[in-house]
Amino acid sequence: MLSVDLNCDLGESYGLFKIGNDKEVLKYITSANIACGYHAGDHNVMMETVKMAKAYEVKIGAHPGFPDLHGFGRREMKMSAEEIYNLTVYQIGALAAIAKSCGTKVEHVKPHGALYNMAAKDKAIADAVSRAVVDADPTLVLFGLAGSRLVKAGEEKGLQVAHEVFADRTYQTDGSLTPRSEKTAIIHDPGLAIKRVIRMVREGRIEAVDGTDIEIKADTICIHGDEPRALEFAVELREALQAEGIEVGRSWDSL
Amino acid sequence: MLSVDLNCDLGESYGLFKIGNDKEVLKYITSANIACGYHAGDHNVMMETVKMAKAYEVKIGAHPGFPDLHGFGRREMKMSAEEIYNLTVYQIGALAAIAKSCGTKVEHVKPHGALYNMAAKDKAIADAVSRAVVDADPTLVLFGLAGSRLVKAGEEKGLQVAHEVFADRTYQTDGSLTPRSEKTAIIHDPGLAIKRVIRMVREGRIEAVDGTDIEIKADTICIHGDEPRALEFAVELREALQAEGIEVGRSWDSL
Amino acid sequence: MLSVDLNCDLGESYGLFKIGNDKEVLKYITSANIACGYHAGDHNVMMETVKMAKAYEVKIGAHPGFPDLHGFGRREMKMSAEEIYNLTVYQIGALAAIAKSCGTKVEHVKPHGALYNMAAKDKAIADAVSRAVVDADPTLVLFGLAGSRLVKAGEEKGLQVAHEVFADRTYQTDGSLTPRSEKTAIIHDPGLAIKRVIRMVREGRIEAVDGTDIEIKADTICIHGDEPRALEFAVELREALQAEGIEVGRSWDSL
Amino acid sequence: MLSVDLNCDLGESYGLFKIGNDKEVLKYITSANIACGYHAGDHNVMMETVKMAKAYEVKIGAHPGFPDLHGFGRREMKMSAEEIYNLTVYQIGALAAIAKSCGTKVEHVKPHGALYNMAAKDKAIADAVSRAVVDADPTLVLFGLAGSRLVKAGEEKGLQVAHEVFADRTYQTDGSLTPRSEKTAIIHDPGLAIKRVIRMVREGRIEAVDGTDIEIKADTICIHGDEPRALEFAVELREALQAEGIEVGRSWDSL
Repeated sequence: MLSVDLNCDLGESYGLFKIGNDKEVLKYITSANIACGYHAGDHNVMMETVKMAKAYEVKIGAHPGFPDLHGFGRREMKMSAEEIYNLTVYQIGALAAIAKSCGTKVEHVKPHGALYNMAAKDKAIADAVSRAVVDADPTLVLFGLAGSRLVKAGEEKGLQVAHEVFADRTYQTDGSLTPRSEKTAIIHDPGLAIKRVIRMVREGRIEAVDGTDIEIKADTICIHGDEPRALEFAVELREALQAEGIEVGRSWDSL
Repeated sequence: MLSVDLNCDLGESYGLFKIGNDKEVLKYITSANIACGYHAGDHNVMMETVKMAKAYEVKIGAHPGFPDLHGFGRREMKMSAEEIYNLTVYQIGALAAIAKSCGTKVEHVKPHGALYNMAAKDKAIADAVSRAVVDADPTLVLFGLAGSRLVKAGEEKGLQVAHEVFADRTYQTDGSLTPRSEKTAIIHDPGLAIKRVIRMVREGRIEAVDGTDIEIKADTICIHGDEPRALEFAVELREALQAEGIEVGRSWDSL
Repeated sequence: MLSVDLNCDLGESYGLFKIGNDKEVLKYITSANIACGYHAGDHNVMMETVKMAKAYEVKIGAHPGFPDLHGFGRREMKMSAEEIYNLTVYQIGALAAIAKSCGTKVEHVKPHGALYNMAAKDKAIADAVSRAVVDADPTLVLFGLAGSRLVKAGEEKGLQVAHEVFADRTYQTDGSLTPRSEKTAIIHDPGLAIKRVIRMVREGRIEAVDGTDIEIKADTICIHGDEPRALEFAVELREALQAEGIEVGRSWDSL
Repeated sequence: MLSVDLNCDLGESYGLFKIGNDKEVLKYITSANIACGYHAGDHNVMMETVKMAKAYEVKIGAHPGFPDLHGFGRREMKMSAEEIYNLTVYQIGALAAIAKSCGTKVEHVKPHGALYNMAAKDKAIADAVSRAVVDADPTLVLFGLAGSRLVKAGEEKGLQVAHEVFADRTYQTDGSLTPRSEKTAIIHDPGLAIKRVIRMVREGRIEAVDGTDIEIKADTICIHGDEPRALEFAVELREALQAEGIEVGRSWDSL
């Protein structure tokens, strides 16, 4: 049976600074990417988010980012591959201990923001992140942009990987996302976004911005949690997937 | 055979800010307490320090502290016991993953600075720290001030504990350290300091500032790494211990 | 003519972490206390908030706090009076330059959170803060809890001071606020809160929690910006003051 | 009479993390660039450094950098010109208030590390920094790499500028520094370094790495404070300059 995972970034609050609507989002997703205190989140938020994810039976993932709370990990930082390896191991470990203290465990890793984008394109960074995941825990699943250097690096190192697709973004012929600076980057029509996702899951194909048809693997779909219509869209997407006979869940867990 | 452990705080550099003389100190100690990025240390320093400790066959411990780089974790912070639990778990986990990535492991935990002092006296904090250690990994050894609330809390939770003594500090009749603000707090004569340590290890007794003799358990001795004469003293102390037939090492590891 | 100032803490966002409803609040207040990047706020938020305050013709004040973004400056930190002096000067200067770059200026200083509370009670801290204000700019007005050590220290140093009162809090016979931990700390009835404020302004008196009547000076009223009913209350309070013939504004500016 | 300024980055300690040998360096320089708490320094270090500079009659400058203590402001950060403007104003203001509280004042601004390098080449950043200096205080002197976009931007905005040269670095034909990654970047022979500096001051010319002779303006020479031989070199350089009849001091101050 066809299936696809729905993931969302959670635990992005920091002290009294509140972000997101985690409790609601947890009802609709199957994988939670939890910030680890570098670009967002803190030890209290992580503990609380892990407990909530466990209560909602949502799988827990580490969401390591650059050490840049002010820039929310979205600013590119020039760093050695070695430092990226180190900070990825650190963040996975911190969340792993918190999960263990709650009687649960981290099951996947998805890099955040600028680290995600840089790891998608840059081989040295992709290698550093995937090596960090292997060395922290080789049973972890590595989430990365579908078809990117990051998932390739993870596969080479023997990790289970999950190709991630975006419902509301367009793709270029090489499988990369159209940059947000371009007019055609975002799909604003929810109906169209859902149709595209279903085709990615069912056929493994998507129409790129120039009209050519490209191959794409869709193991997990990124749901945004911090936008007003995000929850509504998550509900619609789940319903559409079920109507199509596509199960929402982590297909790789049944391997 | 009598034995006593020698421990030192290491890995306290941060970025380009260098502290300590870790490579030299590692030659003389048997336990390294490694800062975890909150009051000192960072992911790079932690990785490097773990590798060095492993190379010198020195046991690795987590040295969690308050999130206060500027105050070096020496400032008391008013915090709930729950938050102290959370930040202790976080820091142990971060170092545990780094140790794992180096093919080694964390074997003990010693809280740092104000957290150490507060956990020595305050039951709620002692309980929070020791519960964090148990929940992160029940095989970890908890280091605390000899006879303090912290070691008691650790014992109650079934942890192996190590009572820590200070060679260069005086004690009050209740077993607490004389505050640094008092003139009599520090023992400046290295010979006297060494004699006192040997008596603590051999007889389990020490003369308090008022002249009364009190009981004290000495499983591990704190060596300071950042003072000019620190290394010299470490050498002298090791030699004196060996001359007395006291083995330098972790007695509890042979249990 | 009787008058009273309405002040509110603004500019408390940090990077992508948004707090408050500054644009709306600015319509109802006459003094804005702007966070200076230590407990909240950052260089971008400060610049934007100063521009908005200027546009709404609201007076700008520095709102220095402890260097504790995670605790939002609400945690007591043990610090020397000298360090408190230094961090107060630093924060006032940072905002002063930002105000100057916008063609306006800082006109008052109100310490934030734990620093405010500690300066209200502790003479050394009160002296440090008020000395910092004098040395940064002796024309600044110092806001402090009505009748507190802070306003006394400011007066002794020749500063113009503003005694601050709270509409929704009860007072003890010594003029201090009833701690939030007590049941009687908060006044939940907006009508009663407004009546009490008007009496404080008109008569300079308030009924303490034990029923005795105490003297209190009310130069400025603290309006909270981050609570759901805050704006509504601000509107009601302004209307009530005007109905009573009390002008909303900074009485000391006309001296 | 010919003259040239000697400047050095000071006040780079942070809390208990000590960097540099400020007290010694102050004996040999005429301009101190003081870190402002973003890439290094803190409110205590700034206060202490300003007092020391004043005592040694060394001119005080703000040394603003990226908000990156861990990377010491040496990592490029992708930031809008607007944010760079804001953080430059903030840091100048913070130091200005500290200087004022000590009865002295900030007289120049030199951006630090990655910000210095980026402002040397990128027009938008050069404009943002120089606009920040003008708006914070138009009497400030802007220090920038000799002949760079930064000094041009400063001149265009009507600022007094100081062209900065490096004694121990080689130059390319366009006047830029040879990147440190190149073998020929550093001049290791102190005698040669001093000869080159004297020619830059006296003739306004320097031999580039390819042997061509280029024009260069030398208003101020950067002295490094954190290297072992730095002080020794400073002494030698001063002596050599005096032997050549070149006064050490800020030529622009006598304008």
